[in-house]
Amino acid sequence: MKKLMECVPNFSEGRDLALVEQIIDEVRKIEGITILDYSSDKDHNRTVLTMIGSPEQITKAAIDSAKKAAELIDMTKHEGAHPRMGATDVIPFTPVSNVTIDECIQVAKEVGAALGSWGIPVYLYEDAASKPERTNLAQVRKGQYEGFFEKISDEAWKPDFGPQEMNAKSGCTAVGARVPLVAFNINLDTPDVEIADKIAKKVRHIGGGLRFVKGIGLKLEERNQTQVSMNLVNFEKSSVYQAFEMVRIEAKRYGVNIVGSEVIGTIPMKSLLDAAEYYLQIENFNLDQILEKRLLDEK
Amino acid sequence: MKKLMECVPNFSEGRDLALVEQIIDEVRKIEGITILDYSSDKDHNRTVLTMIGSPEQITKAAIDSAKKAAELIDMTKHEGAHPRMGATDVIPFTPVSNVTIDECIQVAKEVGAALGSWGIPVYLYEDAASKPERTNLAQVRKGQYEGFFEKISDEAWKPDFGPQEMNAKSGCTAVGARVPLVAFNINLDTPDVEIADKIAKKVRHIGGGLRFVKGIGLKLEERNQTQVSMNLVNFEKSSVYQAFEMVRIEAKRYGVNIVGSEVIGTIPMKSLLDAAEYYLQIENFNLDQILEKRLLDEK
Repeated sequence: MKKLMECVPNFSEGRDLALVEQIIDEVRKIEGITILDYSSDKDHNRTVLTMIGSPEQITKAAIDSAKKAAELIDMTKHEGAHPRMGATDVIPFTPVSNVTIDECIQVAKEVGAALGSWGIPVYLYEDAASKPERTNLAQVRKGQYEGFFEKISDEAWKPDFGPQEMNAKSGCTAVGARVPLVAFNINLDTPDVEIADKIAKKVRHIGGGLRFVKGIGLKLEERNQTQVSMNLVNFEKSSVYQAFEMVRIEAKRYGVNIVGSEVIGTIPMKSLLDAAEYYLQIENFNLDQILEKRLLDEK
Repeated sequence: MKKLMECVPNFSEGRDLALVEQIIDEVRKIEGITILDYSSDKDHNRTVLTMIGSPEQITKAAIDSAKKAAELIDMTKHEGAHPRMGATDVIPFTPVSNVTIDECIQVAKEVGAALGSWGIPVYLYEDAASKPERTNLAQVRKGQYEGFFEKISDEAWKPDFGPQEMNAKSGCTAVGARVPLVAFNINLDTPDVEIADKIAKKVRHIGGGLRFVKGIGLKLEERNQTQVSMNLVNFEKSSVYQAFEMVRIEAKRYGVNIVGSEVIGTIPMKSLLDAAEYYLQIENFNLDQILEKRLLDEK
């Protein structure tokens, strides 16, 4: 069964597209890898690459592209609206097929060690984090490139790999592992955003709700409706159908109904198949019964 | 977007496995094709091959394997428990991804014409059928190999391709196109098979129910329960969730509840995603949002 992992490195260059192509070329050289997307933003001065392949292919692609970025990008001259701390700013690994989060953590460590060996300070984050306070990327990146010249000397922020000394040209890099995020919004037939917000607060983790759900209430001006906008940061544990049913249950209290929902961006097949399995009460369902899963495994 | 089609040819040889390998080898030679499965049954004296590829790859694979079967299999010596009429007995084409049923019908005709040009009488069936009475494979194959020496001279059974004369060595071949079948069973908390059967009769097409649903009631002895066992012959039109909800509605009349369901064999992702989309009330869902779909399209 073919193992597939996703990696979405972010590079701190979004204006010099010829330079960006040189970085992407490093990935194109690797046979069998799929580049799903890459896009550069001039204001952010940043490029986001989405690629999928076997753990070996993805490891090589992450290392080779980061190496090229270290060669070509000079952070002393970098300006851009998006928070950043290095030439290769973040490298997250995500399981796609027949791969566990632990295997992603292993790859993150291998890639982190490689960058460290070139003199780039590396912080492991999310599920790969070595300390709880390094789980959250925003917290790791706080202070940004400019601030790290000082932050790095703090023992609490000793890098997981590489020297405890800022690399002026390449900055630092955050390398992490995480399960895919599912962005799932539920629309309500009330224009009262306070109700949407109250529902969000009962459903989300911080308010006592589902462990891997974050959420807020939003106003949908055009529709004269409101929305519970959620991120499921671990859909295998806090399921899409659970979030849906929890919102329905809370909405009842206000005489409010669900009018629809939306799934934002690309999501793994399994996140929705779980819902089908639940509502259709399917016994002993096996993902290998899905033709497309088998096709990907055989490729 | 990559187009993918499935083809499941059945060959009338299940005992001489070296011979079977020679047929499969013709498919292995075609680059990029995926052989999902092939298995030979001694009692049936028959081999079923499941392969997936682009329309061009699948066309070539169907033609080349049928050519090898025509060369190696001698129907004058064939015995086996399964109904059959030719060396390559049936060749059905099914859409998998980014392919319409019409494109499958086109491929069926192209493959049929090739076999016809070798002197093999060919009947188009299911969605490729040229007459309503040729839609059903069982009806086409009625009389089997032995009976076709006479049946073929009947003007009503003039082949769609090839001579109107039996090919003694290779027999005739049925070439068809159909959407994938979904086998879906729903288990009930009653041991009374009459109730299951009454429900099946209301849900299935022939009894006034859903157009593309066939179904019967069965006893599950071990569980002391019963089952509505269904085939959805066009899940894009008669959906899995519709069948489920119709059974639930009918069961109510008898005070009976659904205790679970089961999906048999391999099914297309879309057949279950439809259910997730329905129950979660997802607005504007696009299959391309599924990571695995995008991966297959990019391959």
